Amino acid sequence: MNQLPILGITMGDVSGIGPEIVVKALNRKEVYEACRPLVVGNSDIVERAVLLIGNPLKINRIENVEEAKFVHGTIDVFHRTELALEDVPYGKVSTTGGKAAFEAIEKVIELAMDNQIDATITGPLNKEALNKAGYHYNGHTEIYAELTGTRSYSMMLAHEKFRVVHVSTHVSLRKACDLVKKERVLEVIEIAQKACLSLGIENPRIAVAGLNPHSGEGGLFGEEEIQEIIPAIVEAKAKGLSVEGPVPPDTVFSKAIGGQYDIVVAMYHDQGHIPMKVVGFQMDQATGNWKAVNGVNVTLGLPIIRSSVDHGTAFDQAGKGTASEESMLNAISYGIELAKARMGQKNR
Amino acid sequence: MNQLPILGITMGDVSGIGPEIVVKALNRKEVYEACRPLVVGNSDIVERAVLLIGNPLKINRIENVEEAKFVHGTIDVFHRTELALEDVPYGKVSTTGGKAAFEAIEKVIELAMDNQIDATITGPLNKEALNKAGYHYNGHTEIYAELTGTRSYSMMLAHEKFRVVHVSTHVSLRKACDLVKKERVLEVIEIAQKACLSLGIENPRIAVAGLNPHSGEGGLFGEEEIQEIIPAIVEAKAKGLSVEGPVPPDTVFSKAIGGQYDIVVAMYHDQGHIPMKVVGFQMDQATGNWKAVNGVNVTLGLPIIRSSVDHGTAFDQAGKGTASEESMLNAISYGIELAKARMGQKNR
Repeated sequence: MNQLPILGITMGDVSGIGPEIVVKALNRKEVYEACRPLVVGNSDIVERAVLLIGNPLKINRIENVEEAKFVHGTIDVFHRTELALEDVPYGKVSTTGGKAAFEAIEKVIELAMDNQIDATITGPLNKEALNKAGYHYNGHTEIYAELTGTRSYSMMLAHEKFRVVHVSTHVSLRKACDLVKKERVLEVIEIAQKACLSLGIENPRIAVAGLNPHSGEGGLFGEEEIQEIIPAIVEAKAKGLSVEGPVPPDTVFSKAIGGQYDIVVAMYHDQGHIPMKVVGFQMDQATGNWKAVNGVNVTLGLPIIRSSVDHGTAFDQAGKGTASEESMLNAISYGIELAKARMGQKNR
Repeated sequence: MNQLPILGITMGDVSGIGPEIVVKALNRKEVYEACRPLVVGNSDIVERAVLLIGNPLKINRIENVEEAKFVHGTIDVFHRTELALEDVPYGKVSTTGGKAAFEAIEKVIELAMDNQIDATITGPLNKEALNKAGYHYNGHTEIYAELTGTRSYSMMLAHEKFRVVHVSTHVSLRKACDLVKKERVLEVIEIAQKACLSLGIENPRIAVAGLNPHSGEGGLFGEEEIQEIIPAIVEAKAKGLSVEGPVPPDTVFSKAIGGQYDIVVAMYHDQGHIPMKVVGFQMDQATGNWKAVNGVNVTLGLPIIRSSVDHGTAFDQAGKGTASEESMLNAISYGIELAKARMGQKNR
């Protein structure tokens, strides 16, 4: 039996653009040709988003994965949280929105851990709403890590063949410097290696970025390269991995984009996020709106698959019907690719 | 009298690609139509570089600016350091190279401070060679600051209309966090404002990046935005400047590239350098060589004009004749633009 992977998709904060981009993505026939998608969340929210795009998509509200139809034209919604639409207007931070977002994530993780679905795809969260609702996490990555009991994980961003994994993410820049430790750098190199293998890349070429300008210029501007990063690279090489570095942070990404590496290990959130968004995000000069928002955010190291949009909730743009579903489509594609690789491994 | 500005150009480390890109740039007729260029450095080095590009450019060795001809086809070389070519082979770090590079900078600064030339343009330095020769600087910026007695300065990178100024440059990332202080941020905002005005931009739109991921998310990941950056922005606004921020570091550059800002104030070296090089540096996928290296590095706040290439010495590529002069041409163009603005001001 060669079935398409089942994807559980959450809408993120229901007051943001999440529901709209999910519905827009599921309005594409080609998505149903590549996977079996279902939305996890409140079905009234899906209905509101469907109205927004002026398209007569039907909704199949379900409470078990088995009830899903997986047919283009009908969105299967695994109904989770009850809520009143007036409590979650577009563009407003709310406790209800934070609670609904969290409970959808909780459910989609549960379904994936239980092997009822093959991958999870997530829409953008609003952290303030999440915190208001009593869920004190810095983002999806941390929620997934906790709920799946994972200690060794990393955030990967990807745009076509340009991929970056991060040694740390949602911490201050000072704290990020503290987290550049040999063991962690080595761990992330190994996570990067596994990720590339699971994407079908043989002998991945891994670049490790420095932390300091010019990779510290031999200790002149910072010691982390000498104390932590180089020892990690030496050990990774000894294990047979194709690793290069520390490559100066300001050229490693141009090289990766130019095809010299399959993946870059970035030392902190913005080191990886800045080049990824320069490549993937394009602004419409006339309107000041994003005209393309490409890229995907994958949590590596989890027992389940999670890929996500790599943009935020865009509260200021919510409810207008103008949001781009590009990044959601990228996230779905990556989720499918990773799920197929894993399904292939299981069948061996 | 409406004369073209006189540019003093240094070659950087003579064992790198600097001499080659200077000679290639001066081989372009349009350069002589826009300015009066002269090279400051050793004339044998210029001769060696001319041979490299297989072109019969003549050399006019001079010891006074008045002796320069400023005619396309002949390179005027303000001869400075004596050296033996065998002491400075291509691709090797040497004390002789470091000394020659420093002395050329020293001379070009002297000529500019003495108003004999209107702008200085610099080729790429090798810091190791510089240090070997006993000159302990982190780069051009620091040399210029010291030799011109400047305390308030900033490095600007530019690629077409995308411009970034830096709160700090050649220091460790930890030290860079320490340097994010209200006074300095405000100083750099004001330097950015002046730079834009001198480039003819009226009412410049200035974006100030945050230091931490998501600009600290309201203090969740770092306090510098609240303690230092926001107060600086408030004060700049009170002075009537059009300043926005702190803008999250991972989207501010996409917005600037998309035309939303005239200049971005970056909090540290790589925050500004990474997006600039992602935009300006393109690698040839087949050969792994850079096929385009665009961008310019301007030191702002000096009493004289300095613009520079924004790439390194590329010792591995030196002596092959394959280096791209794009960035040197960009540096010359910027130098001309800034010199004209200043000459215009003087004539008022």
